[in-house]
Amino acid sequence: MTYCIGVSLDAGLVLTSDSRTNAGIDNVSTYSKMHRCITNQDRCLVIMSAGNLATTQGVIQQVRRDIQEGKPHNINTMGYLADVADYLGEILVNLIRKHTETTGFVPDATLILGGQIRGRDPNIYMVYPQGNYITTSEETPYLQIGESKYGKPVLDRFLTRSTSLEDAAICSLISMDSTMKSNASVGPPIEVLIYQRDHFDSPRHYKFEAEDPYLISIRHEWANHLNNAFRAMPRLESHAHPNGSLHIF
Amino acid sequence: MTYCIGVSLDAGLVLTSDSRTNAGIDNVSTYSKMHRCITNQDRCLVIMSAGNLATTQGVIQQVRRDIQEGKPHNINTMGYLADVADYLGEILVNLIRKHTETTGFVPDATLILGGQIRGRDPNIYMVYPQGNYITTSEETPYLQIGESKYGKPVLDRFLTRSTSLEDAAICSLISMDSTMKSNASVGPPIEVLIYQRDHFDSPRHYKFEAEDPYLISIRHEWANHLNNAFRAMPRLESHAHPNGSLHIF
Repeated sequence: MTYCIGVSLDAGLVLTSDSRTNAGIDNVSTYSKMHRCITNQDRCLVIMSAGNLATTQGVIQQVRRDIQEGKPHNINTMGYLADVADYLGEILVNLIRKHTETTGFVPDATLILGGQIRGRDPNIYMVYPQGNYITTSEETPYLQIGESKYGKPVLDRFLTRSTSLEDAAICSLISMDSTMKSNASVGPPIEVLIYQRDHFDSPRHYKFEAEDPYLISIRHEWANHLNNAFRAMPRLESHAHPNGSLHIF
Repeated sequence: MTYCIGVSLDAGLVLTSDSRTNAGIDNVSTYSKMHRCITNQDRCLVIMSAGNLATTQGVIQQVRRDIQEGKPHNINTMGYLADVADYLGEILVNLIRKHTETTGFVPDATLILGGQIRGRDPNIYMVYPQGNYITTSEETPYLQIGESKYGKPVLDRFLTRSTSLEDAAICSLISMDSTMKSNASVGPPIEVLIYQRDHFDSPRHYKFEAEDPYLISIRHEWANHLNNAFRAMPRLESHAHPNGSLHIF
C-alpha cells in the first residue's frame, strides 16, 4: 500500500509520500514514490505514485524517454499542467491495457501530479488508472492517493487555501503519522516537498527516516496534546441524560 | 453506509452506532442499528448491524421468533456468548444464501454482538457474513463495523482495557464525529449504550440527535483543542533540514 498527499495552497504546493511497497504481505520493500522531473527552467513538475510498482516505474521511464528522444509531445513542451496530467493518463492507460490484454491481470496505478508552469498557477492533479483526472477546489485544497481514509479527518480539519506551506507540511506529517499507526502497509522514510509559488528551481525536499528526531517530536507532541484534549472533554454523565428509547425486541 | 463501535473494558461494554441507511446515494433513511434483546434476567444482549437492511432486519426477526416460539436453541438458552455469536452467524449465512441462490445478489451484513451472561465475563463479538466471528484482545479492546477507517486512529490512541466506561463513550463519540465529518453516509442520531459489568438490567442508553448540545460541545471542544495542538507543533523549518536526495529523472 501507499499513502501520498498533495496540497495546493495560495502560497504554493506541499507534497508528502511514504516509501513502503508490498507485493503480498510478505514481500515488503522500500521505494520512493516521489519523482521530480528534470525540466526546462520555466517549470517544476513532481509526480507521486500509488499502485502497481511496475506500472508506476513504466510511466516514469516513458516520461523520461520522451524528453531524451526530444519527442514534440513531452512534459517540457506542454503549456498547461492539465496537458501534462492528460499525457500521464495516456501513458498510464496504455501500460495498464497492455498487461490486461495479455494476462488478464490489471496492474492499476494512480498518480498525483504537482507543479507549476511559468505564467500559470501552481496546481495538483490526480490521474486515475482510466486516464482521466481531477484537480483540487477552493473548498478541498488537497488530493490523496493510496490508503487515504485514516489520515483524512486531520486534513479536513486544518487545510484551507490560505494555510501556510509550513503548516500544510506539518498537517500532512500528522496525517501520515496517523495512517502509519493504523496501517502497517504505509511506512517510512516519509518525503515532504515544499514548493513555493514561482520558485521553479528550489523546492525544499525533506526525507524523514523512522527514527528522525523531528518526526518523533511531531508524533509525541501530537499524542500529548491529544491526550490532554481527551482529558478535557466535557463529561458525558454531567451533560447528557440517558433515555429509554433503545429498540428492544 | 454505517459506523458502529463495540468496546470491551474491564468495567463493562460501550456500544456506539449511527443511524443512517442508504440504498444508493439518493435513497437515504434513518434506522436505529442498535437492538437490545428482551432476555432472561441472567443476561444482557445487544446487537448492532451494518450492511443490507433486509438481512439485518431478518436476523433480528428470526432471533425474536425463536424466543417467542420457545425453540430449545434460542439466545435465552445459550450458556456462552460465543454460542450466541455462532447462532447469529448461522441465521446470517442462511438469509444471505437464500437471496444469493435465487437472485445472484449477495445481501451481505455484519453484526457486532455485545453483552454478558451471568457467571461469565462481558464481551464483544463481530459476526461476519460468512457466519464465523472474532472477539477483542487485550491489545485491541474494540471492534468496528461499517465505515471504520476514518475513526480508527482516535480509538487506537486512547482505548485500553482499563479505560473507564465514560472515557470509552467519549472516545467513541469523537471517533463517530470524525467519521461523520469525512463521510456523508454516516449520520445521526448517534446511540451510545453503556453496560456496567454484572448490571444486567440497567444499561444506560443515550441518543444524540444532530443538534444535541452535548454532541455539539464534544465536537467544538475537540476542534478547539486540536486547533491549539496544531498551533503548538514543533516548527518544521526550525527543526528539520532539507536534503537533496529527491529522486530526479
